Amino acid sequence: MIRRPTPGDRFSFGLWTVGWLGVDPFGTATRPALDPWEYAGRLAELGAWGITFHDDDVFPLDAPEAVKDERVTRLKRAADKAGLVIEMVTTNTFTHPVFKDGALTANDRSVRRFALRKVLRNVDLAAAMGASTFVMWGGREGSEYDGSKDVHAAMERYREGLDTVAGYIKDQGYDLRIALEPKPNEPRGDIFLPTVGHALALIAELEHGDIVGLNPETGHEQMAGLNYTHALGQALWSGKLFHIDLNGQRGPKYDQDLVFGHGDLMSAFFTVDLLENGFPGYPDGPRYTGARHFDYKPSRTEHMDGVWESAEACMASYLMLAEKARAFRADPRVQEAMDRAGVTELAKPTLDEGETAADLLAGDDGFDLDRAATRHPGFVRLQQLALEHLIGLG
Amino acid sequence: MIRRPTPGDRFSFGLWTVGWLGVDPFGTATRPALDPWEYAGRLAELGAWGITFHDDDVFPLDAPEAVKDERVTRLKRAADKAGLVIEMVTTNTFTHPVFKDGALTANDRSVRRFALRKVLRNVDLAAAMGASTFVMWGGREGSEYDGSKDVHAAMERYREGLDTVAGYIKDQGYDLRIALEPKPNEPRGDIFLPTVGHALALIAELEHGDIVGLNPETGHEQMAGLNYTHALGQALWSGKLFHIDLNGQRGPKYDQDLVFGHGDLMSAFFTVDLLENGFPGYPDGPRYTGARHFDYKPSRTEHMDGVWESAEACMASYLMLAEKARAFRADPRVQEAMDRAGVTELAKPTLDEGETAADLLAGDDGFDLDRAATRHPGFVRLQQLALEHLIGLG
Amino acid sequence: MIRRPTPGDRFSFGLWTVGWLGVDPFGTATRPALDPWEYAGRLAELGAWGITFHDDDVFPLDAPEAVKDERVTRLKRAADKAGLVIEMVTTNTFTHPVFKDGALTANDRSVRRFALRKVLRNVDLAAAMGASTFVMWGGREGSEYDGSKDVHAAMERYREGLDTVAGYIKDQGYDLRIALEPKPNEPRGDIFLPTVGHALALIAELEHGDIVGLNPETGHEQMAGLNYTHALGQALWSGKLFHIDLNGQRGPKYDQDLVFGHGDLMSAFFTVDLLENGFPGYPDGPRYTGARHFDYKPSRTEHMDGVWESAEACMASYLMLAEKARAFRADPRVQEAMDRAGVTELAKPTLDEGETAADLLAGDDGFDLDRAATRHPGFVRLQQLALEHLIGLG
Amino acid sequence: MIRRPTPGDRFSFGLWTVGWLGVDPFGTATRPALDPWEYAGRLAELGAWGITFHDDDVFPLDAPEAVKDERVTRLKRAADKAGLVIEMVTTNTFTHPVFKDGALTANDRSVRRFALRKVLRNVDLAAAMGASTFVMWGGREGSEYDGSKDVHAAMERYREGLDTVAGYIKDQGYDLRIALEPKPNEPRGDIFLPTVGHALALIAELEHGDIVGLNPETGHEQMAGLNYTHALGQALWSGKLFHIDLNGQRGPKYDQDLVFGHGDLMSAFFTVDLLENGFPGYPDGPRYTGARHFDYKPSRTEHMDGVWESAEACMASYLMLAEKARAFRADPRVQEAMDRAGVTELAKPTLDEGETAADLLAGDDGFDLDRAATRHPGFVRLQQLALEHLIGLG
Repeated sequence: MIRRPTPGDRFSFGLWTVGWLGVDPFGTATRPALDPWEYAGRLAELGAWGITFHDDDVFPLDAPEAVKDERVTRLKRAADKAGLVIEMVTTNTFTHPVFKDGALTANDRSVRRFALRKVLRNVDLAAAMGASTFVMWGGREGSEYDGSKDVHAAMERYREGLDTVAGYIKDQGYDLRIALEPKPNEPRGDIFLPTVGHALALIAELEHGDIVGLNPETGHEQMAGLNYTHALGQALWSGKLFHIDLNGQRGPKYDQDLVFGHGDLMSAFFTVDLLENGFPGYPDGPRYTGARHFDYKPSRTEHMDGVWESAEACMASYLMLAEKARAFRADPRVQEAMDRAGVTELAKPTLDEGETAADLLAGDDGFDLDRAATRHPGFVRLQQLALEHLIGLG
Repeated sequence: MIRRPTPGDRFSFGLWTVGWLGVDPFGTATRPALDPWEYAGRLAELGAWGITFHDDDVFPLDAPEAVKDERVTRLKRAADKAGLVIEMVTTNTFTHPVFKDGALTANDRSVRRFALRKVLRNVDLAAAMGASTFVMWGGREGSEYDGSKDVHAAMERYREGLDTVAGYIKDQGYDLRIALEPKPNEPRGDIFLPTVGHALALIAELEHGDIVGLNPETGHEQMAGLNYTHALGQALWSGKLFHIDLNGQRGPKYDQDLVFGHGDLMSAFFTVDLLENGFPGYPDGPRYTGARHFDYKPSRTEHMDGVWESAEACMASYLMLAEKARAFRADPRVQEAMDRAGVTELAKPTLDEGETAADLLAGDDGFDLDRAATRHPGFVRLQQLALEHLIGLG
Repeated sequence: MIRRPTPGDRFSFGLWTVGWLGVDPFGTATRPALDPWEYAGRLAELGAWGITFHDDDVFPLDAPEAVKDERVTRLKRAADKAGLVIEMVTTNTFTHPVFKDGALTANDRSVRRFALRKVLRNVDLAAAMGASTFVMWGGREGSEYDGSKDVHAAMERYREGLDTVAGYIKDQGYDLRIALEPKPNEPRGDIFLPTVGHALALIAELEHGDIVGLNPETGHEQMAGLNYTHALGQALWSGKLFHIDLNGQRGPKYDQDLVFGHGDLMSAFFTVDLLENGFPGYPDGPRYTGARHFDYKPSRTEHMDGVWESAEACMASYLMLAEKARAFRADPRVQEAMDRAGVTELAKPTLDEGETAADLLAGDDGFDLDRAATRHPGFVRLQQLALEHLIGLG
Repeated sequence: MIRRPTPGDRFSFGLWTVGWLGVDPFGTATRPALDPWEYAGRLAELGAWGITFHDDDVFPLDAPEAVKDERVTRLKRAADKAGLVIEMVTTNTFTHPVFKDGALTANDRSVRRFALRKVLRNVDLAAAMGASTFVMWGGREGSEYDGSKDVHAAMERYREGLDTVAGYIKDQGYDLRIALEPKPNEPRGDIFLPTVGHALALIAELEHGDIVGLNPETGHEQMAGLNYTHALGQALWSGKLFHIDLNGQRGPKYDQDLVFGHGDLMSAFFTVDLLENGFPGYPDGPRYTGARHFDYKPSRTEHMDGVWESAEACMASYLMLAEKARAFRADPRVQEAMDRAGVTELAKPTLDEGETAADLLAGDDGFDLDRAATRHPGFVRLQQLALEHLIGLG
């Protein structure tokens, strides 16, 4: 049996996840809408530690200040009462028709200004809620047709927008970091910052990049056929893994947002292994310590029971995989296979201390080409050990 | 009729492109091998400006120095005689079994040292050949199984390797820049630096990143379902578009290396438009001025005539598309459609000069939400104008 | 300039195409809704020959008979007045929550019976409208999880449903043929009958398969990375190309429904070449003579002007490609290249008339293995000729 | 611990699988070649029941009859001695340059005749070896360019070739069935019969289709993003699942041929569940009773030890999954969840016995639309139960 999740597991959920009504491109809602605080209360009962939300999840875009305050206050009180942290807040810059061509990179400058205001106001709200992370998903920043966007200008505006928001956070003294969420496509034909790599590259050009990092989503990387665990690894290496969105996806197709573990299961195992156990060659190395945040959708086929069953499944999958990953690392056969495979040898610098390129060229290691070429690393055996652990016979 | 290419067009070809014999995972060679200087001579006749090569294209990995010198000298003389520039040189760190688990990031440290020596020696050769670009494609840097690689260590070793090579170039005073070539997979299940974004992100962490940039290949980005022209745009914006590999691909499948223009034709049109005409909103903005380099394969079905027919086709496609792209930009209807679409409006900063986030929040633009939301940008009409130009009825 | 389309071009549009309001998984409507007859009238003005619709495009699922009759009658009158044919009718078995797990293959038998009734009633309507084709897209027939569907049972129910509908058509004496529309995924994780091949295979098992054929959609095949023109070819060869859905798609991602020609352009050229000119080796061979039906969506960025601009673009693209394809076939250089490539040689049987396998084994053709292996078919040259024709320099 | 495989498990391996030397598009061989009987002997030691091979795996294409006989005899003796069945034989019509444009559908008629002879001679060999299945993979039947193939002619020639071979089998009285192996692409840009569906559709048009069925390969369907278990289900339903090729693949990319279980693990679980336990709703329904055949490649990184480790891993993965699948089906919670989900309800006909379409239309089920629409099938819960069983906590 899987143990019940506890706040110490740091599981959090977007209100829009359990709150998804099942509207998809070919169908209308299959479930009734609850109020935000109702979702929050139930998540707490299931063992969640935190919740997250878009502004529009709590109040309408055009809500008067009084309505906005009332609803936000009610949500905050419910969260406090339930012992839930509001660990992250994010801005909806994609649902309303005004954002049809983007927000920070909309061709229409008046839209960009409107969007930037919406984001800045939401930064204030995030700070007021006590959130530590401010996610920015630019789902409408992109194009269907290459001729309709000047990519250089788009990068300039993205930089301007992000630096404006990050600078504002610093000016206000908020204890808040921005986390960008890449996605290759959907709802735009091609979205800017399609992968973790592209977002890291943009951050490197920012003035206030020190408080801007990543919020990689499992399915988004996999929609481009990319390795999610590798993406987390590079983000961690760059010191930029600020937040994560865990879910499931079955290859390059529409964004499925399945329960975590219901997509590529072997990949999920190694994702959890990295999050829980870190890099094999760096016992004291970089670790992710933030929320285990689920950004998934209860399948449209399910009614309300399925909302909670799927939320529970996300947490249970993670806990099961974490248990498996710990046993995997602790198994002496695995240690031996990792040694044979040279997994930790890669942490050793290629050059000796103080050795230069010229030294290397001048030296002679007595390298035996044939021997090195026929070395047997046993990668398949190591993978099979992982499989045995994963499916319970390790 | 398409005019004959001239050296002024700066077309270059890898010797391994026309030199590909047709060996694929399921078949043996369908064409005889020529000597490198034979390929070079014929390319010059067809109107090419330059050639490029891997060390192993010219001499075997284990060739004695005398053989190596003799063959390199003979190639250089043939190139000079034919008026061909050797604009780029690259190292083969993927064919020999010793590189089966990578080169700069092989788990086996002795392999990493051997690989680094091979690369450094090839830097000397590149400089001797007068090349200005040194491409590094880490085709074997990656894994099939997440457990067999420590990603943090791999990034560390990639950084160490690149900084060693770049530092060596500087120490030697070579007028040479490194260009990384990303690829998502094949021959490894997942390759490190899978996209232009990931490579830019790594470069941002280098000590000698100033002389390290990108060599994006059309098909490699498209194998991940990504937009190649967007990738070129972000690389240019980052000041890192050092070289390009043009070819054709038909979506996420094996690396096809088709003739340029025989893959996604509309995308090829906008790629050439960017290369020839730059960003619409930045008349004086960043431009790519390097080689128009083709990294393609004559289809395995073809015999020797097809080698040259396909090389000619690459250049002819480019010239045709360049002509179309110039007419597209010059068409007043296109200018008008671009204005309606706000393409150049995006180059205008979102904030007024001196305006701060606080100013923005305090101010009131009199923004009309409904009007902005119902604005008609005419993106489809603009795309249709591009199509009309592309297929000759513009 | 492209000539204006005329009814003789047999262009038709789904009312749901121009009628799409821009609701997508991340956004609400960007355009106002018109009445069906308003869309129809405008399409006639643009040169369309026919319209098509789902029952739910014209009246709500729960409309009283009187409302239904009134709206249908009004649409029919508008079509007649505008000179528009209602060439195809199809049933919406995917929008309402009741179909969340499918219609003909829903696990819930009461839903299957409800769905079958809805389809049968719509057959009556189709006949009353004078339609010749009845499209069935089973967009919700499928699953996200393998455990939730018995595939054998699903195939049994699909067969039962189709035979019931086809039998009813025969019993009623309607001059109507069913056309199945395959799709690999979206809105379900995996849809049954994911490709043209799977649908043909099901039809082969039907009792009334003689009046059941295919309605292949460009983007649906391309979402699986498959060749649409090949799919049309196999469907034609099987005598089952009853209808087509033309649009544009850019590889395996969400269903884009772009304007025809705005996806894979080279593929669109060969699609039109097949539709207009037939198979090269069969001058009197099977030809598609039905509607040129567009099933696309005006991009969500567009306002009402873009609806009509995009509808015009679909027809203009087709007409341009048809003109190109005719010139391509008529060019003596193309004929010569096709001969060299052996394109028509493939129409010649492999065995001589009356020759048996035993004869073949006993005989000796004097086959020259080396000569055949080094033959140069010139496929790349032929493709380049196609490209030259396509982009206007042929 | 996983028990050792036994012949009763009916595991078989292609000699080309363990015999793959590691040659890929970017690298040369990493392992030495053994003789066919050496591979066979070792597979028997590991617990395999059978082997399979291409003609060219055992003797060169141009081998004199004496050499061919000697090598085949030696292999057969080794198999007999080791207790191995030669359950399937297949023809290599893809490696030699003569097949560069296909075999049964090559544009060059002399190549088609040569290919047909090679296949027919191999049928004789298959019969002599006692094989029950004759696999035909048309890996080179296809094109890179739509203009280079007449698809109608290709289908005609495919039909002619298959009927010739099937007719020959009948004439000779061989106890042999043909199994077609679909693949979407690689080594050709687009292969004819890209999926299980397309192959079933072709078989339906054959004269001798009764002895022609399918050999679906896990990775081939997944390269098109399709559901392998669904493909097996439709093939079984059509009575055409004659053989299977089990392996692993990670989405649409090059053909990876990973160990079974090292690709999409959840899909592998349900594949084994179908093979071992059949359709849930048909206890006496169609079952697959043939070989559990692995068509995989030991990763190129591995040396000889890895060849055997990977072969063992294929069998161990299958055995583990079979055990899990049995427990899954036997779990009362799973039975209950399947009932709630209506999995077996789908086996019940939609119409009552004798009920016609007219009856259905005339009748009234008292269908409660809202109730049906809000029914909760619990698909996610059922999937989570599968996950719990799969990873050992069920």
